[in-house]
Order: sequence, then C-alpha cells, then structure tokens
Amino acid sequence: MLRTPLAMRPLQARPLSRVAAFPTRSPLASLVHYRASSRTLATEATTPATPKPIRRWRTIGRYTLYALGSSVLGVGLLTGAIFMHDAFTYHERHIDGVPISPRALHPERGGPKNLPVLSRLLSDYEDDENRDLVHKPHLVIVGGGWGAVGILDKLSPGDYHVTIVSPETYTTFTPLLPSAAVGTVSVRSLVEPLRKIAARLRGHLINARAIDLVMSERLLEVETIRPDGKGERMYIPYDKLIIAVGSTSSTHGVPGLEHCFQLKTISDAQGIRKRIIDNFEAASLPTTTPEERRKLLSFVVCGGGPTGVETAAEIYDLCQEDLINYFPKICRQEVSIHLIQSREHILNTYSEAISRYAEDKFMHDSIDLITSARVQAVDVDKVTYSRRGPDGKTETHEIPTNFVLWSTGIAMNPFTRRVADLLPNQVHKKAIEVDAHLRVKGAPLGEVYAIGDASTIETSVVPYLLELVDEADKNKDGKIDYDEWTIMVARIKKRIPMAEEQLQKVRELFDLYDSDSDNSLTLNELAVLLQEIGNKITALPATAQVASQQGKYLGAKLSKVAQRRKVLEANGLRPEEGDEAVTGPFRYLHLGSLAYIGNAAVFDLGRFSFMGGLAAMYAWRSVYWSEQVSMRTRALLMIDWIVRGIWGRDLSRL
Amino acid sequence: MLRTPLAMRPLQARPLSRVAAFPTRSPLASLVHYRASSRTLATEATTPATPKPIRRWRTIGRYTLYALGSSVLGVGLLTGAIFMHDAFTYHERHIDGVPISPRALHPERGGPKNLPVLSRLLSDYEDDENRDLVHKPHLVIVGGGWGAVGILDKLSPGDYHVTIVSPETYTTFTPLLPSAAVGTVSVRSLVEPLRKIAARLRGHLINARAIDLVMSERLLEVETIRPDGKGERMYIPYDKLIIAVGSTSSTHGVPGLEHCFQLKTISDAQGIRKRIIDNFEAASLPTTTPEERRKLLSFVVCGGGPTGVETAAEIYDLCQEDLINYFPKICRQEVSIHLIQSREHILNTYSEAISRYAEDKFMHDSIDLITSARVQAVDVDKVTYSRRGPDGKTETHEIPTNFVLWSTGIAMNPFTRRVADLLPNQVHKKAIEVDAHLRVKGAPLGEVYAIGDASTIETSVVPYLLELVDEADKNKDGKIDYDEWTIMVARIKKRIPMAEEQLQKVRELFDLYDSDSDNSLTLNELAVLLQEIGNKITALPATAQVASQQGKYLGAKLSKVAQRRKVLEANGLRPEEGDEAVTGPFRYLHLGSLAYIGNAAVFDLGRFSFMGGLAAMYAWRSVYWSEQVSMRTRALLMIDWIVRGIWGRDLSRL
Repeated sequence: MLRTPLAMRPLQARPLSRVAAFPTRSPLASLVHYRASSRTLATEATTPATPKPIRRWRTIGRYTLYALGSSVLGVGLLTGAIFMHDAFTYHERHIDGVPISPRALHPERGGPKNLPVLSRLLSDYEDDENRDLVHKPHLVIVGGGWGAVGILDKLSPGDYHVTIVSPETYTTFTPLLPSAAVGTVSVRSLVEPLRKIAARLRGHLINARAIDLVMSERLLEVETIRPDGKGERMYIPYDKLIIAVGSTSSTHGVPGLEHCFQLKTISDAQGIRKRIIDNFEAASLPTTTPEERRKLLSFVVCGGGPTGVETAAEIYDLCQEDLINYFPKICRQEVSIHLIQSREHILNTYSEAISRYAEDKFMHDSIDLITSARVQAVDVDKVTYSRRGPDGKTETHEIPTNFVLWSTGIAMNPFTRRVADLLPNQVHKKAIEVDAHLRVKGAPLGEVYAIGDASTIETSVVPYLLELVDEADKNKDGKIDYDEWTIMVARIKKRIPMAEEQLQKVRELFDLYDSDSDNSLTLNELAVLLQEIGNKITALPATAQVASQQGKYLGAKLSKVAQRRKVLEANGLRPEEGDEAVTGPFRYLHLGSLAYIGNAAVFDLGRFSFMGGLAAMYAWRSVYWSEQVSMRTRALLMIDWIVRGIWGRDLSRL
Repeated sequence: MLRTPLAMRPLQARPLSRVAAFPTRSPLASLVHYRASSRTLATEATTPATPKPIRRWRTIGRYTLYALGSSVLGVGLLTGAIFMHDAFTYHERHIDGVPISPRALHPERGGPKNLPVLSRLLSDYEDDENRDLVHKPHLVIVGGGWGAVGILDKLSPGDYHVTIVSPETYTTFTPLLPSAAVGTVSVRSLVEPLRKIAARLRGHLINARAIDLVMSERLLEVETIRPDGKGERMYIPYDKLIIAVGSTSSTHGVPGLEHCFQLKTISDAQGIRKRIIDNFEAASLPTTTPEERRKLLSFVVCGGGPTGVETAAEIYDLCQEDLINYFPKICRQEVSIHLIQSREHILNTYSEAISRYAEDKFMHDSIDLITSARVQAVDVDKVTYSRRGPDGKTETHEIPTNFVLWSTGIAMNPFTRRVADLLPNQVHKKAIEVDAHLRVKGAPLGEVYAIGDASTIETSVVPYLLELVDEADKNKDGKIDYDEWTIMVARIKKRIPMAEEQLQKVRELFDLYDSDSDNSLTLNELAVLLQEIGNKITALPATAQVASQQGKYLGAKLSKVAQRRKVLEANGLRPEEGDEAVTGPFRYLHLGSLAYIGNAAVFDLGRFSFMGGLAAMYAWRSVYWSEQVSMRTRALLMIDWIVRGIWGRDLSRL
C-alpha cells in the first residue's frame, strides 16, 4: 500500500501544485493550463514506453510542484490563521472602582531618613490573588538582568509578594548587544518587559534605582526619576532582598574613560550605532580632510574578551557587507579596526586553539591586533597605549579616533559599593562577597542575597578552620589523622563546592602538608593547607551564564523554603532558619563559552573546542536563540536574521 | 479525469500529512502510526458501506491533514530557502586604490561667504557609471520625505547627477507615526535609508540641513553637524534645485508650544512613546498623589485632523489592550484622553457621515471631545482652553497634564522662510508659492522648484490677465466676446488646472460678469471675474498624497527634459528652456482620505464614504501597506502587525 502506481499519483498532487505553480495567473488561465497538462499527464500515464530519464524528470518536476504548492498554501494558511487570531485580540474591557489600600494611596513615612515607605502597592488589593500575596513574605529583587530573570523563572506563583526594582523597565539579552550595536539585529528583539516576565508571579515593578539599604529595619532606599526629571526617594520594605544589579566597567586607573563607549545596555548599543553611522556620514563629505577621514573611520576596541572581539567582528561585518555598498568606496578603503588587548592573546580565557583561530581570522580580515599592550589614556580624539618594542623598551603609540569601546573587567556600581561599605567584613574590591548559599556575608542570615556580577563567592577556607576541625576531630585530640581528614574534605566540599577541584588528591594533599610526617595534621599545618587551597580556587567569571545559574538556583531554593514553611506551619511548627535545611550550596556547571568572530564562530566546551565558518555561526546563533527569555524575542530574532539576509543591515541610525 | 475515486485519494496525501500531523514524534513512531493509519484507510476505501456522515468527517479530517501538512512543509521549505539564500550573502570584497578627484579631497572655496564648494564628491570617479554622471546636470533635492522619494522614484538612471540634502539619513512613512508612537509598529519599519533609495540612480546623500540659497551663483548653503557636535557650512552647486523640506507646525500664536509634542519625525514618535510609558511607571508608584496620578494619565491632543484623531485612538488602544494587563488597574481607571478641536467637528475635512461616525466611536470609548474650543496656552503641567459656554459666554478651562500633542496646521521652516524672503514676489505666509509647473515664482526659470508642504500652488489668475487677453483676443478689439472667452477658459485651465472646477459653466460665467450685457467682457469685467475665481480655488492640502504626486510629476518631467535634451543635442540643436515644452502643468488627483479611529477606520473617497470596525481597519492597513517605499518595510510592517496580534504592543520604552 505504500507505493501507488505512477498513474494515480500526479492527479492527486494537482489541486495543490496548481495553486503554487501559477500563482500570478488568472484563475481561468491556470485552469486552461491545468486541463492541458492533465491531458498530457494522462497520456503519459497510459504510455509506459516513455523513456526513463524523461519520466524521472517529470517526476522530479511534479515533486517540485508539490513542494512549491505546499509552501504557498502553507504560508497562505498561516497568514489566514494569524488574521483569524488577530481579529480576536481586539476586545473591550471596562474598569471601575478598583479596590485599593489607603496605605498605597497615601504611604506613611518612616525609616532613618523619614521617607515614604511602600508597605502597600497600588495593585495589592485589586483582586483575590493579589490580596492573598500581601501577607506572604515580601521578596524584593534589585536589578532586572540575567540573575533576576533566573529567579523569576524558577519561583512558583503564590509563594512570595515579589517586587522588582530596576531603572530599566525591561530585561536585555546582553550577549547579542554587539550585534545590535551594528544593526544585525534590532534592539527591540533583545528586550522583554519585566512587567510581562513578572506577570506569572503577579510581581510588581518599581522603576527606580537602588541607593541604600537599612538592614536593621529591612528597608531598601530607592530613587525614581519623575517624568519632569526630578528624583524622588522612598523605602521599599523587604523580608528577603536579592541584589542582582550587575557591575560597571573597571577603569584600571586609565584617564579619559568618559570618552569611551561601554556595551552593557541598550542605550550603549544605540549610541555606538549612531556614532558609526555619523562617522561614515561625516567621512563621506569632501570637506573632511584625509587625516580627519582616517580618524573618523578608525574604530578602537579595548579588551580582547568575548564582548570586545565580537564588537570588532560585527563592526568589520557592517563595513564589509553593508556600508561598502552605499557610501563612497574611499570610506571602506580607509576603515581600520584596532583591538587592544593587555594579554598576549585575545580570547585568553578560551582554549589556545580558539585564540589562535580567532587571531588568524582577524589577521585575514585586516583587523589590527595589538596584544600585550596597555592603554595609557583615552582622549576625545585619540587613544594612547604603550607596548614593549622589539628592543625590549616600552614604546608609546597613538591611534587617532573618536570611537573607543571599553570592555575590560568589572567594578562595583554605587549601590554595591554602598552595601559593601555597610558591612565591615566585606573586603573584596570588585563585588559583594557571598557564601556558597549566595547569602551576603555579614548581613542578617537568610535576608540578603547577592548574585551575578554584583557578587563573588568566597573562596577562602581558613576562616572555617576551627569549625571544620571541631566537626572532623572525632577523637578530640586536637589533630587530624587521615580518616578525620577524609571527613574534613567532605565538609569543605559541601561548604565551598568550588574547592572540589583542589581537593581531588586527598592522600597526596595529606602527605604533602604533613610536614613532620607524624601521619596527622596539626592546626598550623592545616592552616597552611587551607590557605593554599583557597588561593588556588578561581573565582567564577562575571558572565551571563553564572548570573543565570545563580538566579535559577536561588529561585528554586526560595520556592523550596516557601514550601517547607507551609508544611511546618500547617503542623503548627515554627519554620527554622537556614537555607542549608532545604538545599545544598550553589554549584556552577560550566556549559562552555562561545564567541562570534565575523561570519565564523568559536565554541570552547571545556574538553573540546569547535570553530569554523558559516556553519559555526549558525550554531552560535542557535545557542543564543534557544536561550531567549520569550517566544516573542525568539521570533523577532529569527526575523532580524532573515531580514539581514535579504535586505542587509539597517543603516538608518535609529 | 478531474475527479478521482475516493480510494485513490488518501494515499497521495499522506507523505505530506505525516510530516504535519505528528511533527514532534520520532521518525520511527510516526512511521508506525503511518502504517497503522494507512491500513485503516485502506479498509475504509474498500468498504463503501461506511455511513455517509462518518465518511464526510474523515474526508474533512483528511483535508485538514493536507492543510496542516502543507503549511508545515511550506514553512519548512521557506526556512530552508532563506537559509540557503542567507549563506550566500556573506562574501569578501577588497577595495584599494579608489580613483578620486583632487577637488573632492580638497574642495575649493567660493561663493559670497567663501565656504568650501562641493563641485566634486568623493564617489564621482570611483567607477565608469559615476564618472559619466559628473558632466550631467546636477540635480539637488533638499529634503528626504514624500516629495523627494516621489522624484527619486520617477527619475531615470543616467540623466542627472543627483544629490539629496537631508538632516535625516532615511525617509519616514509619516502616516504610520501615530502607530509607532504607541508601539503598534516599530519605528524601524517606517524608515528606509535614503542612500538605498538613491542607489538606483547612483545618487549621493549629504547629511546636512539647508540654510541659504545663492540663486545668482546656483549655490545651496548647507550646514552639517560633525560627530563632535560642531556645525560646518558649505556650498553645494546645482543646475536644478528642488525644495522638498516639508513644514513645521503652526503655533497659531499660542504660548508654551515648547512643552508640546509634535508628530512629524521618528524622534517625535520615540519621545511620545517614552513619555507615555514614563507617565504610567510614575503613576503606578504609591508616592504619586491621586491628583498627580490623574495628571500623569491625562493625554491631551490639540487638533482634530487625521494625525490628532489617530494618535488619540492609538493611545486609547495602548491603554485598553496592553497597559491594562501589566500596570495596576487603578492606572487604567484614571486614564483620560482629551481631543481639543477648534472647529465644530473632528475630521472636518472629511464627509459629515465620517465625522459623525468618528465622534460616536470616540464617545463610546470615553475619549473627551472638546470641539469649538481654542487653546489659550500650554504650560509644563496644564493646558488652558476657552470655549463658549451654554449661556453664550466664553469660559476658560484647564486640563492638568504633562502630555500635549500639537498637530494643527503648518508653517514655514527656517529654510523655506529664507527662500521666500529672498524673492520679493513671494507673499504667501505658510509656504513658497509655485506656478502650476511647480517652479518657484520669482526664481530663475527651470532652476528652482518646490513641492510638498513647503510649497503652495498659486491660485490667483489676475496677474495673467493681460497675457490671457492678448492670446484670446483674436480680433484685437480689446474686448473678449464669447468665442474668445472659450479660448481663454482653455488657456486658464492649462495654466491653473486647479481653476477647472470654477470654470465649468462657461456660458453662465460669461453672462454673469458681462454686467453691461454687450455680449463681450471688458478688461475691468474680466479682472473682477478672474479675481473671484481665484478666491474660490482651494489650495491643495498639506498631505503626503499631494507631496508624493508632485514628486512623481516632477521626477517624470525632469526625465522627459533630459530625454529631449539628448535628442536635440544629438541633432546639433540647443535645448530650449521651459518645462511647458515637455509636459503639462501639475494636476492633483485626489485618491481619498482615510483615518484610523481605534479598531475601526474611515475612508472618504470623494463620491462615497466607507467606515467600519475591524474589516475597515484591515483595509486601512492594506492601503498603507501597498504604499510602502520598499519590500523591506512592507515585510517589517506585516511582521509588526502579526507580532502585535500575538504578543501585544511592545512596552519597553525603546
């Protein structure tokens, strides 16, 4: 039954293929043609003597018609369905007499600065579901990036009264900012409104910037900018606070960074885009001198990490594939792209093969790689850097430019700085130190968490020395023998999962640090051991991947905490403190790194690497595509890539 | 042969339907299912005794499978084709040693202000085609809107060296700006880079603003803004200049218009969008007092023309369909939209039925219509207007608001003002007066044209009186008898096509103005007649439709002029001056007016009107869709509408 005689086949396909093959003809014309061809086909079918090749070609032709027909019909049906759906999206709703708490309409003042305290929000009583949440623990998330979205993703509805505090009203898919900066994708395709993401949890958004924290009264001080440009401060009370505010760029003490672009937000991407097009427009004027033109068309990127590399590659693509077609060709000729990297290689956190591949690709594209160089200063019209010359002496060079992207390292933003200053045991310079459960060290236990770029997990084991000995020293002789050492190793791993790698060779470590070879470790020997292990632990990188995993971990944990509280309360028991009761410490699972390097991409998957041209680029796109927050951005991204394929990048300076 | 027995049919469809119906299954699973179902179908086919309804349902089911199958296959094929195409869009090109004129690299200075004169552009010698154009007449188009695009559309390649001078690098589809202002469509979907549009003609873009004109030396003075924010002035030489710079809003002498939005550019739309979302964010804070909240959520539109009406309708849609879902419901409750119109009705240039329909729709939507009112002043936080009360006295009212859109009437922008001031016979207050051939009155003939909002066609016939009499007075008796009058009418119609409507009743006019009934018109009688006819002619409205038709008319004319020049030169003749030689005067063909009024639309097609709900809205969309400049914006618009249908409007304040 699977195969049907040839004579039967073509007749079936025609109702479809007819639509497709002659879509521009009048119905009558196609009908005539259809009849004629059906006669031909009928003749053919009853004449098996037709030579084989012809028959094969006809069959192929017929299948092509199938294919064409089905695609036209398919797209047509889809369009029809969309119109049907669309027509049902316009509806009327009337809203009147919304119940509202007087405390939301006229908030009381309080806290150390006597500011309004937002103990009730406007929508807290607008329906039953919201009313139920008012008496749940108030969870305040500061920030709207990867960490915050991770939490929102894993929280269960109904457990917490959730409030997001963010100066932006949307979350941004940061890894594609370099693409957006040159118009390969539209900025709109990278953002999703936080209010939409929070809607599942009936969460609230306060469009404000966090300023200060009053831990004793559990108040977060925020500042909102009114439409008239004036700032207004207020307190948001919390039961649990999560700091997920990200970071700013580290200046490394270089003067003139105010003349640089960063690439952390949508406005950064828009600014870069506008500057590139502006520079090309100015360069295409005859009144621009040749020197000035070279300056306008030289693009400098400081930092050879993924962001810097991808931006350099995207700028190259833009010049090579799009601007070349519409601006005077002399402009393309004068374009120069410079990448200044302090290390010996670009993408130095990736495998060596990848670094080399990326460098070869950049050489081939005539991107000027300046490695082992140090930026001295950035001016409004030039970058100065120093580099050891072939004779071993340090030479100073200048690149005339009005476009410098600064993307090297991270630093604390003002709020993180303020929180760290409030806590005497916070000594880390770049981020807030948290324990393995992501709780801010020194803050009341279980009340303040920090995730993502704003935080760093403590790697020092020494502070726990006495506690660890106390737990492990079963025979209480003040020393740790090998059996006790194995217990201790297990404890350390649980407390600081990042120490696992350093603790793999249990016996060797024991023997190595047992300096008096008495088959036991004294406190002093242990202190040295733990100190050196701590030094060897690498902090987690400040990446979207880490922030997202931390957010998801924390969201899942907070859901479990809420479940447990419910069960305990149902049994008349007081919920115990301590996150350890519900879940283990945070463990980072590195899923690999990837980078776009200009119609080619590289993947570092730990054990093995993968790099290549267009195929790798599509793989790179599909990874990012699958990581999108919503189907909406997924559809928009796909459309952007298709639109670029058909019509090129948008040159409109928007 | 058209109908095939039922038994044959299902077998054919299956290769398609299998793909569609079980797209998520593994190939094996679907194969198993496929075999099972084919067996069922085979049984059915050999059992014609199956009751009819069941068979019918099965047939319907089968066709549904066809449909599903073909849509999935169709979309799949399309995606495949797009990927194939995409892979071929990445290519390498190397550019080196571009030939370039020394005069383009170092322009000489000249003109009254001794500024650089751009006699050669950077790309003028980069290839043979461009080199050929250098010695063609230099056509400079000032502006990048409807008029300019109309010209570019109709010019033939190779006839002129075309330069566009525009402060924006793109053209904007202005009729959809109200939609873009609320995020129904994306601003990117409304713009097309001018460089891309000009590429067909190998035209050039100077990204600058026109400042002044030196008609004696045929130099246009422009100012460009360098990336560092400094202005730089230069001259662009022209052989033919077309002024298509549009207009600004008329203030009508109302103070405080700096607190208003306009809706003429993409940045206006972005500003409006940002303000609406900002206001909603601020309104959703408990620290906002109820009075302040009402102020933030009251949106005032001044002007009851299409732009004002559409913006009011779009704001209503945004609040009603999207913001309502994500902001506290109290915000929706407090929204008020006010439309202030100086006339008695909104859309007063449309038919009465349409005005009434739109007013009814707005009443139903609780949009506050304030007709026959005059805005007195706009402040940063309120609008004051006056209106005659029921007792006949003028009452003054205030609306507290921080959102006022001003869209009433047009005025000259600084460049148009300057050009009018240069010419003593330019007396019109709102635009540059042009003759029926769109030539600027008083400028050297055939050198300076003006189109679109920047221009108005003269309606006065009196200045031509003596000339007309001279032509028509065949018997040279200094009077015009009826036969001569018919000749004269034909001449007037040719000169001023807009007078046609007033000249339809030839005999009646003659008798009416023949005050001494001597069966002939004296000069005095003629002067009165022509004066009154001139007064009755309505100027063309300042619409996209007029600008576009004028642009296309002028583009076609200039092409004809170039053709004629070529023919004459080939025959060794000097080309004569005068556009009359190649084409008649500009005639406007009104294709109808349309407006969106909130999930409904109205069409005024002259003889008949059409208005209605969703169906009319789709018709409204399809008119605008078909008018797009490029397939790119057409695709993007369609996608925007689909995205809105599925995921709602973008709330991201971008």
